[in-house]
Amino acid sequence: MKKREGFEDGGVFAAGNGLLDRRLLLSGGLAAGAAGLALGQSPDWMKTPGRGFSGYGMPSKWQEKVQRPFSPAPGRPGTGSSRTPLHLLEGTITPNGLHFERHHNGIPDIDPARHELAIHGMVKRPLAFSVENLMRYPMETHIRFIECPGNSGGYASAQPAQTTAGGINGLLSCSEWTGVRLSTLLDEAGVQPGAKWVVAEGADAAAMSRSVPLEKCLDDAVIALYQNGEAIRPEQGYPMRLLLPGFEGNMCVKWLRRLKVTDAPVDARDETSHYTELMPGGKARQYMFLQAVKSAIVKPSFGMAMRGPGVYEISGLAWSGAGKVSKVEITADGGRTWAQAALGDPVLPKALTRFRLPWKWDGRPSVLASRATDETGETQPTRAAWVAQYATGQFYHFNGIQSWAVAADGTVSNVYL
Amino acid sequence: MKKREGFEDGGVFAAGNGLLDRRLLLSGGLAAGAAGLALGQSPDWMKTPGRGFSGYGMPSKWQEKVQRPFSPAPGRPGTGSSRTPLHLLEGTITPNGLHFERHHNGIPDIDPARHELAIHGMVKRPLAFSVENLMRYPMETHIRFIECPGNSGGYASAQPAQTTAGGINGLLSCSEWTGVRLSTLLDEAGVQPGAKWVVAEGADAAAMSRSVPLEKCLDDAVIALYQNGEAIRPEQGYPMRLLLPGFEGNMCVKWLRRLKVTDAPVDARDETSHYTELMPGGKARQYMFLQAVKSAIVKPSFGMAMRGPGVYEISGLAWSGAGKVSKVEITADGGRTWAQAALGDPVLPKALTRFRLPWKWDGRPSVLASRATDETGETQPTRAAWVAQYATGQFYHFNGIQSWAVAADGTVSNVYL
Repeated sequence: MKKREGFEDGGVFAAGNGLLDRRLLLSGGLAAGAAGLALGQSPDWMKTPGRGFSGYGMPSKWQEKVQRPFSPAPGRPGTGSSRTPLHLLEGTITPNGLHFERHHNGIPDIDPARHELAIHGMVKRPLAFSVENLMRYPMETHIRFIECPGNSGGYASAQPAQTTAGGINGLLSCSEWTGVRLSTLLDEAGVQPGAKWVVAEGADAAAMSRSVPLEKCLDDAVIALYQNGEAIRPEQGYPMRLLLPGFEGNMCVKWLRRLKVTDAPVDARDETSHYTELMPGGKARQYMFLQAVKSAIVKPSFGMAMRGPGVYEISGLAWSGAGKVSKVEITADGGRTWAQAALGDPVLPKALTRFRLPWKWDGRPSVLASRATDETGETQPTRAAWVAQYATGQFYHFNGIQSWAVAADGTVSNVYL
Repeated sequence: MKKREGFEDGGVFAAGNGLLDRRLLLSGGLAAGAAGLALGQSPDWMKTPGRGFSGYGMPSKWQEKVQRPFSPAPGRPGTGSSRTPLHLLEGTITPNGLHFERHHNGIPDIDPARHELAIHGMVKRPLAFSVENLMRYPMETHIRFIECPGNSGGYASAQPAQTTAGGINGLLSCSEWTGVRLSTLLDEAGVQPGAKWVVAEGADAAAMSRSVPLEKCLDDAVIALYQNGEAIRPEQGYPMRLLLPGFEGNMCVKWLRRLKVTDAPVDARDETSHYTELMPGGKARQYMFLQAVKSAIVKPSFGMAMRGPGVYEISGLAWSGAGKVSKVEITADGGRTWAQAALGDPVLPKALTRFRLPWKWDGRPSVLASRATDETGETQPTRAAWVAQYATGQFYHFNGIQSWAVAADGTVSNVYL
């Protein structure tokens, strides 16, 4: 840590352009003096009894703009995506009503009493599970993120998209999932020698299918039945979805209907026409399942305005499909110097991690960026290095460093470092 | 661990009457053979495109019975409580729509642009914070439970209440809270020598007030602005509430309007007429703030039916206002022998902890109970020992051991051990 003489707050800088040490718990000096404090005067809402109870509550009417934006293709209302407004949220858990959606032919309305999960193919005993039967199996609970492999794909464009942090990165959400370990069910079915893959199929009108390595299915894969405590939402696969922690969201098949154990991948539409990586030589790289280490600053970000020089908290999210985030560094001088952000406690594997760092903005134009490293030692590449790996137009699995420019007037824009 | 010879599954017992070791990951043997597997026949919902996107999602229509029950007093629609249906939920996070409610004169409809938090009294600089200003302060995020001190008060009755686990224990919820550490704001205001208490007042029509020890306010108290990622719900104090981790819920004042630093408690209505402990000598014990170590089995519980002999997962919640849960023991033979349950990972301080243990029920009448111990070494007392401390009628702060009887026909009832 470098101390700078003459700094009026006696503050301790951790890097250039005002980044303060993460252990400082500065008060912002933002309170108004309470000279005019009108405590004798009760506001209107203290003068009359408030409203009563409800069976299932909703957000405040004053928060009605906190929504998932979506824009389905004309004539295809159930195909496309909606995004979690990350820039309007805090902490790490995504409320169920705001979990991002990605549907390939809409949300089926499944009667849970008529739904079954079949396990068949290269197994000794083909099995079928009703929801009720599955509920009796031993369960486990974990906080895990799900991220669409197309998330942040806008960074593959030549010009930075001027949109919100949620607009760019909002195909990403994090929930506490509860369900049955898939290995328990596969053990019961008895996997035959030579089996290497499991083809998962959803009960939607697209019959969305993906091939999953058997190894992952025998590791930490879960048949998720609950999301943040309650039954999984229709948009997330009610009554059940496949959860493959750290793997691309598209593989976490919703409305899960069957798991066919095979010796080879099935070459489903979504693992051939989508979600592959187009390489410079003209070939497409397939079966890149891991959502690699990544981070995004959400405060400040595009659409927000800084209200003059002073102390701000820089805050954002970091995550890695490979395990725990070990470090997030932040720059306020366009990458010249970096300071380490404070990480939420505890840091959980394959979950969103909130990072924070106080920043004393001096009012001059500044470029902010974050760079995460995970416990395997992987660090986010620069955007340029990420783009250079691929053919033009490839936008899946973007995990490069993202940057925001703060102008002297306090507006924030997306820039490429 | 005691091995029993001749047990047909080769299982390992951890205690009497079928309690299995927590490390066993048994499949329940509940799947139907898939001989009749009709995979060629697609269900109706695969034959037509599903519904489209939504800005803010809701639970499945098939889950419409998962609600907070409430029964306000006649003519007082905003006074009373609603309860989290713990027996219908899983994991540890309570979805925001199902967080329990306890209101003293309804839910005020507060315009956040007109709301202020004042800090005054024995401070050097009285301060007032708008919501917008508070949002700029450094924040922190923690998963914490809130429990009403009247929760589980039914156990003080001479006869066990025949109601659900949520009906008995549902004045209890757990969320990821994000907000500003109160000590940061008190530092800025400058607490005067001699100050010992902080009186918190809500902006509801009851002006709900409680006295909080200054020591707690300078420890882990938080002005909570976000709940499970989104703005705090109206029922939970929108736009802000006081969060005192581990202390009784009534002190976590909602719609927080002011904090007055004082040298003595204010003797507010809710710390004199309510939430005190009536002792055998006729005196009432005041300022018992801590929600002590506690646990409840929610599966199986009253209202559920066991479907014949076989393997079941016993599952429930444990928590302690003093820190982390260190151990949960379960008995299936009415307290004669106990086995240790598996705890969720990670165990967080002052948060709900899910515990699980597999049980091979032989179909005979059985009495189940759970007993939690926290990291300070405190263990739940028996119900009888808890009751014996107090005068008749005192029901606050119940944390005794709870028990369920399973009858031969599989029905579950509440019993006192």
